[in-house]
Amino acid sequence: MISVVKVGGSAGINYDLVCDDIAAVVKAGQKVVLIHGGSHETNVISEKLGKPPRILTSPQGFTSRYTDAETLDIFAMVYAGKMNTRIVERLLKRGVNALGLSGLDGRLLEGPRKATVRAVENGRQVLIHDDYTGKVEKVNTGLLHLLLDAGYTPVISPPACSTAGEAINVDGDRAAAMIASALGAKQLIILSNVPGLLRQFPDESTLIPHIRYSELEQALSFAEGRMKKKVLGASEAIATGVEQVIFADARTSQPIQAAMSGKGTVISR
Amino acid sequence: MISVVKVGGSAGINYDLVCDDIAAVVKAGQKVVLIHGGSHETNVISEKLGKPPRILTSPQGFTSRYTDAETLDIFAMVYAGKMNTRIVERLLKRGVNALGLSGLDGRLLEGPRKATVRAVENGRQVLIHDDYTGKVEKVNTGLLHLLLDAGYTPVISPPACSTAGEAINVDGDRAAAMIASALGAKQLIILSNVPGLLRQFPDESTLIPHIRYSELEQALSFAEGRMKKKVLGASEAIATGVEQVIFADARTSQPIQAAMSGKGTVISR
Repeated sequence: MISVVKVGGSAGINYDLVCDDIAAVVKAGQKVVLIHGGSHETNVISEKLGKPPRILTSPQGFTSRYTDAETLDIFAMVYAGKMNTRIVERLLKRGVNALGLSGLDGRLLEGPRKATVRAVENGRQVLIHDDYTGKVEKVNTGLLHLLLDAGYTPVISPPACSTAGEAINVDGDRAAAMIASALGAKQLIILSNVPGLLRQFPDESTLIPHIRYSELEQALSFAEGRMKKKVLGASEAIATGVEQVIFADARTSQPIQAAMSGKGTVISR
Repeated sequence: MISVVKVGGSAGINYDLVCDDIAAVVKAGQKVVLIHGGSHETNVISEKLGKPPRILTSPQGFTSRYTDAETLDIFAMVYAGKMNTRIVERLLKRGVNALGLSGLDGRLLEGPRKATVRAVENGRQVLIHDDYTGKVEKVNTGLLHLLLDAGYTPVISPPACSTAGEAINVDGDRAAAMIASALGAKQLIILSNVPGLLRQFPDESTLIPHIRYSELEQALSFAEGRMKKKVLGASEAIATGVEQVIFADARTSQPIQAAMSGKGTVISR
């Protein structure tokens, strides 16, 4: 069985605890595919390099990073460079034969680049033409099986690969959903710096333990900020055959085993 | 047959021309393993991030980058992040099924971390203890064959993996030498921003067309700066079974095919 785990890139995530738990799960004989984020660190490095992040909000209220060519360089540096290297290093130190890949490698994560991005700024709609973003539509499962069968644990991050072979920024949660469904995984675990979906963010006592697929549309109305994309990813995963998506807390010990046992927000049909 | 090509990271290298030529060679049926550098861009980003590079000179006159944990983060960002991503992207656009790896991935390039680095600063010897550097002693050829046999073109950069699983800075030319010899390659092509080894650097009319292995020790005496490590790498490659090492120019069209036909400095027994 293959477990697909996404760990976010927000501040406060404890990658040591996450990697401890991946090592435990892998040593118990499970195959794991890890997808990771890097948004917080990308913001930090962008500021330091004098290219502060610009966040776009779509007319539907979803946020995304404005990614011109220079931002994509920074994005690749942080996600595929620093974050990926340090997560692979943590896993190697724990005896896991980890191997890092970006979605560009062997066209692992492929989809069309958006020719135009529509955003709302100061109450007005603007069209953006130099954005390198897109959506994953195809996963190179042959490459993942090749590596998993040879005993490697793939550690995957954006950028992905456009149809024309360009590096593009894609949402990590939705990419993880595509990977889980392409691999026929039963569970997709999405770890972040909150315990799950909260009815009243940021009040953690309002955690929703279970949501049905049919209620996800409604859940979008109270999902805040980056959680909206996670709900969208969960919806896409379940629509394409994943049985359970679990939103769980990446700041606690054994976060993956806790999620597997149903702690967090469990989404299913 | 597998061709092992190293392309440097100095200013002036034309990666578009290098990737054009790799695509031509791959389409002609040859398997290629590409190793790349990133020193110039690492210097640029280090300066921008307020952590200017510090270059160490060994008592033998070899230079290397002082690499504490913070420098290693920057190093990984530039080599495994920006440079690797953009080279893989160039190859994908040219129809090559490229796949980027750092030496950390699946312990591709492994060797001991140096506990202490000896350097000469202001005429005095100093000992450095917090350096994350080492030397590649073992190549995971199983991983390279797995990928090559499946039709991927590996694009490899430092950092490498210490015995304990830490990310370490290693010299790219010497790593390329280890890869060529581990794969049983007949030729190792080392491309940089000079036409080959010059008897009087930087006078390009003093290019040395051929050097015997037995003359390499002497060649070290007029090799300048980073060229010293290339001579060392060439010596190690030939000592471990590679027939020819060719230093050639990465600024011209068809640089790899030119090198294959003997243009540049050819080193052999």
